[in-house]
Amino acid sequence: MEREINKIVIIGSGNVATILAKKIQKNKHYTIVEIVARNIQTGKSLADEIHSLLCTDISKISQIADIYIVAVQDKTLPILANELNNYIPKDKIIVHTTGSASINILKNISSNIGVIYPLQSIKSSSSLYIEIPLFIDANNEKTKIQISDLANSISSKVDIANDEKRLKLHIAAVIVSNFSNYLFTLGEDFCKTENISFEYLLPLIEETVRRMQTTSPSIMQTGPAIRADQNTIDLHKRILKKENLSETLDVYSFLTEKIQQHFEK
Amino acid sequence: MEREINKIVIIGSGNVATILAKKIQKNKHYTIVEIVARNIQTGKSLADEIHSLLCTDISKISQIADIYIVAVQDKTLPILANELNNYIPKDKIIVHTTGSASINILKNISSNIGVIYPLQSIKSSSSLYIEIPLFIDANNEKTKIQISDLANSISSKVDIANDEKRLKLHIAAVIVSNFSNYLFTLGEDFCKTENISFEYLLPLIEETVRRMQTTSPSIMQTGPAIRADQNTIDLHKRILKKENLSETLDVYSFLTEKIQQHFEK
Repeated sequence: MEREINKIVIIGSGNVATILAKKIQKNKHYTIVEIVARNIQTGKSLADEIHSLLCTDISKISQIADIYIVAVQDKTLPILANELNNYIPKDKIIVHTTGSASINILKNISSNIGVIYPLQSIKSSSSLYIEIPLFIDANNEKTKIQISDLANSISSKVDIANDEKRLKLHIAAVIVSNFSNYLFTLGEDFCKTENISFEYLLPLIEETVRRMQTTSPSIMQTGPAIRADQNTIDLHKRILKKENLSETLDVYSFLTEKIQQHFEK
Repeated sequence: MEREINKIVIIGSGNVATILAKKIQKNKHYTIVEIVARNIQTGKSLADEIHSLLCTDISKISQIADIYIVAVQDKTLPILANELNNYIPKDKIIVHTTGSASINILKNISSNIGVIYPLQSIKSSSSLYIEIPLFIDANNEKTKIQISDLANSISSKVDIANDEKRLKLHIAAVIVSNFSNYLFTLGEDFCKTENISFEYLLPLIEETVRRMQTTSPSIMQTGPAIRADQNTIDLHKRILKKENLSETLDVYSFLTEKIQQHFEK
């Protein structure tokens, strides 16, 4: 019989730490023994909310947990991993939660390391019911099973992903989420400039996304670019030029050309 | 007392014609006296569905309607407008449904012309409950009121938009819908290449869009570009290069730079 894990320490009190903590706390099988955070305000608030303790001094981190979840910003992770090396027992499971860092960033800390990467844009204010696909990895089978059990207890979509696959998932996420959010920003800016309520565009955006539940976006491409409707394209560009919206004009021209090349293939 | 309109002819049997016809038919105040369509198959199917008649010969178009709605593709509109000139009584209301054509394309047909532009990506298979903001225009006040009544009977979001405003709405629609759909297509292609299920990305995309109900996308921008996380950007680019995905690499580089310039401002 494998030893089961149940005591958890969460290091961090930001967006990912908060939502993971709240989701884990709902499952009676697991106990979050403490939140470790330098930020007393967010740390205290999170610890209180999930009825756990707060530790603000990393040298006093609890030694009794089975798994340590490091949910901090990408840039903080390397420094923190170095520090944790001194304070976590060498056989405990430790995981990080980022898409672009290697699992090996944790290798000096313990003999049981892993990753739980949430492929979602998470805010601490996110609903507890937000759907979060989790991609996990571990450096040995036993750890992988234990991490998988934990991941499955908080998400219905769990899959294995090594360093390379996580990096690729991250690229896909940047393309479909960060880049499209930028387009929504440009659209909103344009509406502001032209005194149009951006709200009018929301049903269209929602419909564009809703369709992907059943239909590949590649066969749903519409608009003047794919129709090769040069009159409309020229008319649009002329207006963007007239309004001195050079950034939007650049993006319009670039993506129109890319769409035409893509769908000509 | 203004003369009310109630008898309607719809010219076209494509996506927009179908959804407008179905929405109008639900309102007992209006009667669709016939569907005019060259395509016997889609025309017959639509006419049957809404319990109306089909006319396939434009020279025999019903003379008794109060309003004629021309819902055809942008490129067909100019030719059709020329033909209709001969067959529609000069005082009837006639409207078209496109964002980029001027209201004046109809000016030889009647003294009462207008536009009902649906700002939505419509398929004939769309649910009847799809939300469609309608932008209307007319060349005189009486016609505007009558078109407005009709528009309000099928949509809860109706606003006035002249030629220029419709063109601008169309630009905004292209940016937020056509361009983002292209990014979703690139994301899906990338997932296929890398043997990743695109389904895993859907919750992220939905969340990105869901937030715009309450929050401006400009303050929700995340990702390596806005964080100026050059390590991750270089890593991502290296993978795209290695996998020979030059189109995706081009788009990644271009939009990353644009995001950085935009949010530096």
